[in-house]
Amino acid sequence: MASGEIGLPAHPELRDRLAAAADVHDYGPVAGSPELLAAAAGYWNRRGIDADPGLVVAGPGSKPLLFGLLLAIGGDVVVPVPSWVSYAAQIRLVGARPIPVPIRPGQGGVPDPDLLRAAVREHRAAGRDVRAVVVTVPDNPTGTFPTPETTTELISAALDLDLIIISDEIYCDLVFGPAPVSPARLAPERTVVTTGLTKSFALGGWRIGIARLPDAALRERLAGVASQIWSSPVAPIQRAAAYAFDEPPELVDHVAAARGLHEAVARAVAEKFTAVGAALAPVRATCYLYPDLEPLRAELGRRNIDSGADFTDLLLARHGIGLLPAAAFGEPERSLRVRASVSRLYGDTDDQRRAALAAEDPVALPWIRDAVHRIGSVLTAVTGR
Amino acid sequence: MASGEIGLPAHPELRDRLAAAADVHDYGPVAGSPELLAAAAGYWNRRGIDADPGLVVAGPGSKPLLFGLLLAIGGDVVVPVPSWVSYAAQIRLVGARPIPVPIRPGQGGVPDPDLLRAAVREHRAAGRDVRAVVVTVPDNPTGTFPTPETTTELISAALDLDLIIISDEIYCDLVFGPAPVSPARLAPERTVVTTGLTKSFALGGWRIGIARLPDAALRERLAGVASQIWSSPVAPIQRAAAYAFDEPPELVDHVAAARGLHEAVARAVAEKFTAVGAALAPVRATCYLYPDLEPLRAELGRRNIDSGADFTDLLLARHGIGLLPAAAFGEPERSLRVRASVSRLYGDTDDQRRAALAAEDPVALPWIRDAVHRIGSVLTAVTGR
Repeated sequence: MASGEIGLPAHPELRDRLAAAADVHDYGPVAGSPELLAAAAGYWNRRGIDADPGLVVAGPGSKPLLFGLLLAIGGDVVVPVPSWVSYAAQIRLVGARPIPVPIRPGQGGVPDPDLLRAAVREHRAAGRDVRAVVVTVPDNPTGTFPTPETTTELISAALDLDLIIISDEIYCDLVFGPAPVSPARLAPERTVVTTGLTKSFALGGWRIGIARLPDAALRERLAGVASQIWSSPVAPIQRAAAYAFDEPPELVDHVAAARGLHEAVARAVAEKFTAVGAALAPVRATCYLYPDLEPLRAELGRRNIDSGADFTDLLLARHGIGLLPAAAFGEPERSLRVRASVSRLYGDTDDQRRAALAAEDPVALPWIRDAVHRIGSVLTAVTGR
Repeated sequence: MASGEIGLPAHPELRDRLAAAADVHDYGPVAGSPELLAAAAGYWNRRGIDADPGLVVAGPGSKPLLFGLLLAIGGDVVVPVPSWVSYAAQIRLVGARPIPVPIRPGQGGVPDPDLLRAAVREHRAAGRDVRAVVVTVPDNPTGTFPTPETTTELISAALDLDLIIISDEIYCDLVFGPAPVSPARLAPERTVVTTGLTKSFALGGWRIGIARLPDAALRERLAGVASQIWSSPVAPIQRAAAYAFDEPPELVDHVAAARGLHEAVARAVAEKFTAVGAALAPVRATCYLYPDLEPLRAELGRRNIDSGADFTDLLLARHGIGLLPAAAFGEPERSLRVRASVSRLYGDTDDQRRAALAAEDPVALPWIRDAVHRIGSVLTAVTGR
């Protein structure tokens, strides 16, 4: 449960679209084909986000787009704590400094706006050039998202501090109830949105992402960086991606089935953590849980488990269960939070995974039921609860 | 003739391999699949270059691999003058400084080793941290390559100065006679080699490249950078690329046909430039010519053409012929050198291009003959010769 890779089959129509595009082999435009850019703009428009094909850049994954944005924007960047491991690593790679700012409890993906103001002012007072804040809506690793009030406060802070908001919305179609508000709806003029096909469609290996830019100047800078680093997204993949971002009904249904599966299994695994006494904010999106074993610190300490890493090392070595400690997401070493991804529990074969996608009650399928049950047993054994 | 894109159809078997891999959608290893890495190592071994699959990293094009190498190696980098436009741009993007060093006449792609020594010593004396030299063997834009003696001197200088050699060998299969010596054959312990499928197979839009690393430490650093920027090369493309780098006979024949076509058309266009008095080193590789109109400076000056850009602007505006001025490759603005790429002259349709590939004498095909003839007429008209 350490990997965030989505263990689901590709939709057959997506596969067929790629196969049909196998003869496409020219570079094409740096920012992507007109068809893909139009499909991407439509995708965002349907979500209430203003987007123009001329202000979209497609790239070989949302990860390279985020990296390119760091170069295109320049300066230091605020990151939430916890947040996806690659933000801080990318910021350091471009020679800038990540400025860690904690989230509000249960509102992952967005730094606490009050703490953000204080941190940016402090860094600027020390001579640092802070230009952007990265948010993840909804969030990896917590599976949560901010309230509309927090998002409004974030935008107000970004306006006051003149920060660009980079909103990583790769999980935006994996929300179990009412969706979070994208900062791009409230502040389209200063928000970049990125997403891709990796999470909704389990197409990590296809490496395709899109970025919605707030203005032509930043679009030109990002396209300039793209032309020097990756030239263009893979041409045959772009064909299939244009079809996906057009969201025909068969794909909308497919994503809905995946979302339902994530929700059912995430809730079932969450119960196993809360059953042994872990604290856990309600899981509202993604395939991730971020339980906090702090309430168990005394018991765990008697078993020589004093940090998230102690806990994840033990689970891997003794029970073959992979989790990530909170320290991997920028939290203190001694934190007893861990991230669990449920996306690899859906089966060992594509047949099992297809059955899981189709099931009314996927947790009743024997292989998922057994996997969830085993997690419960291991947690009981390790915590003594 | 401005674009370096190879205007040739993809081999049908490559297309079929990609179509057959359309169901592959997992990330896979950061450095690429074991099959691709083994095929890449075999590709180099057949060229006398020691390579181990464990010391190969595949990426989404050789361009991102070069960029990743700059981050993995760090420091300033020597670039030949002239050289491919992206080297200097990438070096600046990572916050380092390109150190331009001229080539020896007719020996493109490698900086003059004596001037290299002087330049590196000068920059180090000024406090700069110079760590690598990029070479292009054979070369874009000149279509030439260094003598074995120059390559030996380059390696000797790299040893004395403790520089890593990054040898971009994307054109290594498009050499018309005896091949240049790769620095990796003479100094495997300090040479990185990069290549891809863009030039030999006209697969620019597939974005797949490979890098051969000299040691495990640099391999780890490059893989670390890759994991933060692009995650992995596109999985279905990797399947087709593994087949290509295995070099089955049908693909070897295909590349041989492409090479013969480039040679025939490049020589025919070269004759048009020399016929009006341009200086031109014998074209020995690639699909590029790099004629020098300096002998015509007086005549051209009377027509208000005083730089390569004046010449290329005129040809584009008046005659619809695109060329790139030498300034685009790091040469002085007033240089009257220009780069011509012949790779888009092979036809307007895939049928024409296939006929060009199959022809004994492609320049006798009416559309190529007419295109070459027109270039001659335009050069005569513009130069007055």
